[in-house]
Amino acid sequence: MNSIHNRRLVILTEGRLDVFGAKTAVSIIRYCKEDVVALVDRVNAGKNPESIIGIGEGIPIVSTVGETLHLKPTALLIGIAPPGGMLPAEWRKHIVDALKNRLHIISGLHCHVSDDPEFRQLAHDHQVEIWDVRKPPEDIPLGTGKAKETKTLRILTVGSDCNIGKMVTSIEITNTAKKRGINACFVATGQTGIMIDGSGIAVDHVISDFISGAAEKLVLDRAHYELLSIEGQGTIVHPAYSGVTLGLLHGSAPQGLILCHQPTRKTLRHFNDFPILPFPYLIELYEKLAQPVHPCRVLGIALNCFGMSDHDALQEILKTEKETKLPATDPIKFGVDKLVDSISFLLP
Amino acid sequence: MNSIHNRRLVILTEGRLDVFGAKTAVSIIRYCKEDVVALVDRVNAGKNPESIIGIGEGIPIVSTVGETLHLKPTALLIGIAPPGGMLPAEWRKHIVDALKNRLHIISGLHCHVSDDPEFRQLAHDHQVEIWDVRKPPEDIPLGTGKAKETKTLRILTVGSDCNIGKMVTSIEITNTAKKRGINACFVATGQTGIMIDGSGIAVDHVISDFISGAAEKLVLDRAHYELLSIEGQGTIVHPAYSGVTLGLLHGSAPQGLILCHQPTRKTLRHFNDFPILPFPYLIELYEKLAQPVHPCRVLGIALNCFGMSDHDALQEILKTEKETKLPATDPIKFGVDKLVDSISFLLP
Repeated sequence: MNSIHNRRLVILTEGRLDVFGAKTAVSIIRYCKEDVVALVDRVNAGKNPESIIGIGEGIPIVSTVGETLHLKPTALLIGIAPPGGMLPAEWRKHIVDALKNRLHIISGLHCHVSDDPEFRQLAHDHQVEIWDVRKPPEDIPLGTGKAKETKTLRILTVGSDCNIGKMVTSIEITNTAKKRGINACFVATGQTGIMIDGSGIAVDHVISDFISGAAEKLVLDRAHYELLSIEGQGTIVHPAYSGVTLGLLHGSAPQGLILCHQPTRKTLRHFNDFPILPFPYLIELYEKLAQPVHPCRVLGIALNCFGMSDHDALQEILKTEKETKLPATDPIKFGVDKLVDSISFLLP
Repeated sequence: MNSIHNRRLVILTEGRLDVFGAKTAVSIIRYCKEDVVALVDRVNAGKNPESIIGIGEGIPIVSTVGETLHLKPTALLIGIAPPGGMLPAEWRKHIVDALKNRLHIISGLHCHVSDDPEFRQLAHDHQVEIWDVRKPPEDIPLGTGKAKETKTLRILTVGSDCNIGKMVTSIEITNTAKKRGINACFVATGQTGIMIDGSGIAVDHVISDFISGAAEKLVLDRAHYELLSIEGQGTIVHPAYSGVTLGLLHGSAPQGLILCHQPTRKTLRHFNDFPILPFPYLIELYEKLAQPVHPCRVLGIALNCFGMSDHDALQEILKTEKETKLPATDPIKFGVDKLVDSISFLLP
């Protein structure tokens, strides 16, 4: 069921379809549009997704799972996180409907859908699976520092904050590298990346002693690729998530980093007391932290200029390049050719 | 059962009683000697613990749990913390014996003893409890950055490696501060510290998204103390455990750090490819990492001069003070008065 081939997804967004509230849904539509047959969202039913999130032209939005059945869906993907962590009653009904109609469930929620007795029984009765993508595999070892011994070029995205474009940048680098004939692999480390790719480990959901071990396993299992484009998490100076960021940095032992940043963001998202740090501080800190485990350099800057005009975004890019002496781009507006140029210098 | 009062402990060390192999046992004997009625260790049975580990004079070492019963023990404490945390197979029999004789089990292993069906059934049948001290509480929230708003003085031990004296230093600081009339509290963040203190959270065993949240909760729950002496974990440049170290640093938001180091150690323990870093590199890195969440300074150096003569240890301390311009001591050989002097300057 985890296969990304021949899947026909219904995405549950239930009134929260917007660029910030439905990161998972938006990303699945961006990168797997051909897999998406419908969205279930009573508030937005009848609308065109493109009018709300700028992408997804032609995907129908309906009110119930029942209305999608003629499209022969194979799975219901939960495309949003519930407020407060608990599953609202009306969402439960959609999951029950999906299971009764023999759709698999794909969920990135912190609470595991497969731990719910009703859902588990229904999945069993209707012979479908519940894929909690955040549930880590059982066999994650402790980190050993061995990722640095692999011959593959390991490029990790890092950021000045969470939710700033690290996954998108890593996917775009993978796709552009592949177009150039490089044998590249996207390495998913978060729930949305795993849903897109079909494999990976949600490093924020492993036991904390095993963060580096999880990152290392992801690298060692893919060491035959020329290039691994590894999805970063959080930021090294985040009051809540920095541990995950650092474990991922040391476990994956990258030779190069791409630093992701949103120019319009002045403080950490949801943490207004904490200002976003200047590039020189962040670059020095990431490089000095990596150094003792595996020397690496920041190779370029990915700017998330969402909401800015192309003209303003270009000005920001030029300013960033002048300040950091590194190539900069907005991956969505202008692509990542500059970053892949910079990365390619490190290929054997 | 978690109470540290009126407990009579049998410690299982089973052939591994030495200063490095039985860190938990040695620390319990050091700080809770009055609680320990016997050690179970077939290889060392009949010997005096003091001849092996330098402390524990008079505690009998026997071969089986059965031989301790006349001493009226209340619990069997598993006295090792091996890398990976798995339970050696030959120890199962001792646990079974203990449960059948109505002893509680106290374990700091990564694998939960209470998850084992045989042990769980025996505990139920004999009405005793299994305390897996590494099992985190269910109610750990995400980090919010609020620890820095507490008025308590928060002092965290950090290190140049794992297993280098952070817990001992934090306990010694607590005890010395109390003797001076400071309302101080040791904050346990690892299994041995929790066994000694009776409370705490093993931050290396929480889901990685919640490391900072766990550290923050430990501080917020104890914010009425004048001084919190917080047990550190790992090191910021460790290929396996750095994530835990950083989450703890940001979650507990200390105003001051004590850097722990072992002069005779040249590479990370169990990781011979990774050299121990020089003081200036480590001090700058810890301070720059902490700065954006809560500014703090390294206030002193705790040297673990195990195996060195007092004369050589003193020379090392003088050298360290000259190099770092910070007070240095060996907490076990010479006490921590110098460190508490330095810390006291920050008390309100």
